Amino acid sequence: MQKWLRRIALAIGSLTLAVGVVAGGALVLRWAFVELFYAPPGGERSDQKDAYLDAIPAASEDAPNFVVIFFDDLGWGDLSSYGNPLIDTPRIDRAAAEGLRLTAFYSASPVCTPSRAALLTGRYPVRSRTNYHVFFSDAHPAATIRKVAGLGNDLPADEILLPEVLRAAGYATGMVGKWHLGTSPGHLPNDFGFDSFYGVLFSNDMRPLHLYRDREIVEEDGGPVDFAASRRHEDVPMPGTIDQRLLTRKYTDEAIRLLESYRDERFLLYVSHTFPHVPHFASPEQAGRSRGGLYGDVVEDLDRSTGRILDALAELGLEENTLVLVTSDNGADYLGSSGPFRGRKGETYEGGMRVPMIARWPGRIPAGVVAGGIGMNIDVFPTLLGLAGLPLPKDRIVDGEDLGGFLLRGEPSPHDHLFYFPTVGAAPDAVRDGRFKYLLSTGDVGRDRAHLSLVDVDAEAHDVASLFPAETRKLARVLDDMTRSVGTNPRGWLPDDG
Amino acid sequence: MQKWLRRIALAIGSLTLAVGVVAGGALVLRWAFVELFYAPPGGERSDQKDAYLDAIPAASEDAPNFVVIFFDDLGWGDLSSYGNPLIDTPRIDRAAAEGLRLTAFYSASPVCTPSRAALLTGRYPVRSRTNYHVFFSDAHPAATIRKVAGLGNDLPADEILLPEVLRAAGYATGMVGKWHLGTSPGHLPNDFGFDSFYGVLFSNDMRPLHLYRDREIVEEDGGPVDFAASRRHEDVPMPGTIDQRLLTRKYTDEAIRLLESYRDERFLLYVSHTFPHVPHFASPEQAGRSRGGLYGDVVEDLDRSTGRILDALAELGLEENTLVLVTSDNGADYLGSSGPFRGRKGETYEGGMRVPMIARWPGRIPAGVVAGGIGMNIDVFPTLLGLAGLPLPKDRIVDGEDLGGFLLRGEPSPHDHLFYFPTVGAAPDAVRDGRFKYLLSTGDVGRDRAHLSLVDVDAEAHDVASLFPAETRKLARVLDDMTRSVGTNPRGWLPDDG
Repeated sequence: MQKWLRRIALAIGSLTLAVGVVAGGALVLRWAFVELFYAPPGGERSDQKDAYLDAIPAASEDAPNFVVIFFDDLGWGDLSSYGNPLIDTPRIDRAAAEGLRLTAFYSASPVCTPSRAALLTGRYPVRSRTNYHVFFSDAHPAATIRKVAGLGNDLPADEILLPEVLRAAGYATGMVGKWHLGTSPGHLPNDFGFDSFYGVLFSNDMRPLHLYRDREIVEEDGGPVDFAASRRHEDVPMPGTIDQRLLTRKYTDEAIRLLESYRDERFLLYVSHTFPHVPHFASPEQAGRSRGGLYGDVVEDLDRSTGRILDALAELGLEENTLVLVTSDNGADYLGSSGPFRGRKGETYEGGMRVPMIARWPGRIPAGVVAGGIGMNIDVFPTLLGLAGLPLPKDRIVDGEDLGGFLLRGEPSPHDHLFYFPTVGAAPDAVRDGRFKYLLSTGDVGRDRAHLSLVDVDAEAHDVASLFPAETRKLARVLDDMTRSVGTNPRGWLPDDG
Repeated sequence: MQKWLRRIALAIGSLTLAVGVVAGGALVLRWAFVELFYAPPGGERSDQKDAYLDAIPAASEDAPNFVVIFFDDLGWGDLSSYGNPLIDTPRIDRAAAEGLRLTAFYSASPVCTPSRAALLTGRYPVRSRTNYHVFFSDAHPAATIRKVAGLGNDLPADEILLPEVLRAAGYATGMVGKWHLGTSPGHLPNDFGFDSFYGVLFSNDMRPLHLYRDREIVEEDGGPVDFAASRRHEDVPMPGTIDQRLLTRKYTDEAIRLLESYRDERFLLYVSHTFPHVPHFASPEQAGRSRGGLYGDVVEDLDRSTGRILDALAELGLEENTLVLVTSDNGADYLGSSGPFRGRKGETYEGGMRVPMIARWPGRIPAGVVAGGIGMNIDVFPTLLGLAGLPLPKDRIVDGEDLGGFLLRGEPSPHDHLFYFPTVGAAPDAVRDGRFKYLLSTGDVGRDRAHLSLVDVDAEAHDVASLFPAETRKLARVLDDMTRSVGTNPRGWLPDDG
């Protein structure tokens, strides 16, 4: 009897030891791989970047302030001004009525990280090596996989970001909300030109979702690091986690505090909301009020936030010299509306990348105009630099165009073509011009094939390639040229004559 | 040298022998499995079926003729009367203007075989064991897998089909076009009540696509059995295959020939088109004419076909006593329009199952009415039997409802609920009533969850469950009841008191 007990104890002991050794070994290996092989990407063009920033002049006399309000996963059809039948967004709609509402504006990617990189750099995601889906929390196994596989989990340090240029030109630069461009030291918002940062480092379904002020954690997420539960958990916060129901309000309070502090400065204020990304949390005062359910509540919270920011601008007397942009990082996810378009977040169909864009600048941008010209969030960088009278970097391709004439003076869009990059990979799936979209592949194996659509007419339902052979050949060539170009020079370096 | 040659010859010889043995063994095994274990499903309720058909009375005095025009993969938005901006369907639109156009009509499945089974039996696909995707050509490996796995590749012989009942009541019953309910002896159209059959046994991307008249091949498909090529091949037929560009015209010629032969008989004419299923082939006279490209040409061919059939009815003086139904077996596939709805073929979102339905019967169905009441192709069986004054079978559940009052007299739809069965499995994904759709799952792993939508309002973009808790609980219970019911009694047998 005792002999058996000894054997059982021995067996349990050895098993525990074996599991411990394997687990310990795995942890050591993970550490070794990440520590030895992973370095945050980036110094190839750091010298050129420094030289460019050093040479930035002061902004022009008439340079305006900039407020960029960026939603996360808000679909083209999620605002009442874009036709939503259940969600009420009176404040954003009023901004649209006081300015320009674009119907053919795009994010540069159907997912978060690459879209944000494009917004802040003016370049397609492949340029900043953000063309392999999104960055992950360091606690998530995907972060290790990304690092080991060489996909990177941080924006390269030699990318030039909008706040860096504007700060060099004398702007105060504040960021509120979601970063999602890296978590490593040297790759945080304050490392890329923001004077101040208040927000979170990644999406709200990633954990631990600490709330930062600059580089310091000011509210610690003490909940379990349970990614699956994090996605399923809506409305009622997981025990120990930060209270996401308050995030939109906290961001908004901080944004208004920053505006008040900017009274005598030119400024860029980047308000990068956490919502309506999953999981959904509405503020206590809004919960249960929208006809669009919890998702509607979340979007109506964002509308009220936008209204508060616009009110603050008015109260501070800043309306007339502030350009406000309101847009989204990609199309609607599982919930939310793609409007009349095909597809959703993650897809290079219109529903994945076509997003609202409202541009308001009283007295400078004509009021109440709805414009169908094409634009993309890669245009924000060159447009804002143009309005501030600042030069673009010359050592690298800036894919975006200056939309100044288009927004302020009703000129046609400067874009001949826009490319649709998928969530994974360096090659664009599709290209559009003012009339047609040529979609080479959507990854729908065995079904899809190259397909030319009248993209503003029929939700990509019909292939009209046979009716427009010359246009098809032309767009196929343009797409092929771009594919080859990003294949040989993904980061878009130009000959450096410095 | 000679020794080496001998060795090489020996090696080649043994290898050939080995491959031959393995291949031969596999063929023998395949044969043995299929021959020994596969029997076309069916005789559980054959006696009851025979008794029911034996007892069918003659149709009532005022029973009309029936023409059912069934398209393959035509989307809700593919007709101009349903808002298509590029495809012109004047003949179908005129039929809609002369009758009733339904906006909330459904196929019983988002794929071919189960939808056809539902149309002809009046029962949800699970009843006829067609709830595991589609039947395959015997030459396709999937047919063997289906047979070995016990999923069946033929409609059970004890199902009661619309043409069987109508024929017992004195109707002539003709079928033209695509069957897709089995290829085994005893499971062909002529075995299920059709006096005459002219068409093909399965989809046009399956091979060999022989053209049959009754049980005989009248045009042999002599092309290679290359399924992948078959899908990719559009517009230009693969060498040796039947010329699919002529299919719609051949079906139409046969349909008109049948109508002429029915001059003195009551009849059911079932015109089950091959198109617009992939691959797409337009008739030579239409090719290149539609603004919707090749797909548009294919649909416009179908429109012209419908016009020719309606013209023939008029010329034969049959208009006033013929009910014409025009609908589709599921939503649009890769190409084609889902209208304003979410999803496509294969999905239990609206776009996969909501289809056009036009009902025309001059003098009996009010002209020019657009109706939003809910219906499904399971209703065709009981509706036509009702109009012919014939009893329903009593030994089995008929899931459909008699839409006579709804179509002819503007009464509300008799349905409290409609269920959405997925392409694979016995449990319904979703249920709708007149206002809400409760969708439990779409198989979009990690994203979707139970979701209540105002299904006619917002393209399933928003979850309003929190606003309508009682309605959510009720629909969840209805769905759960149905799931349990089809779990315990999938075929829907009722106690047999014969």
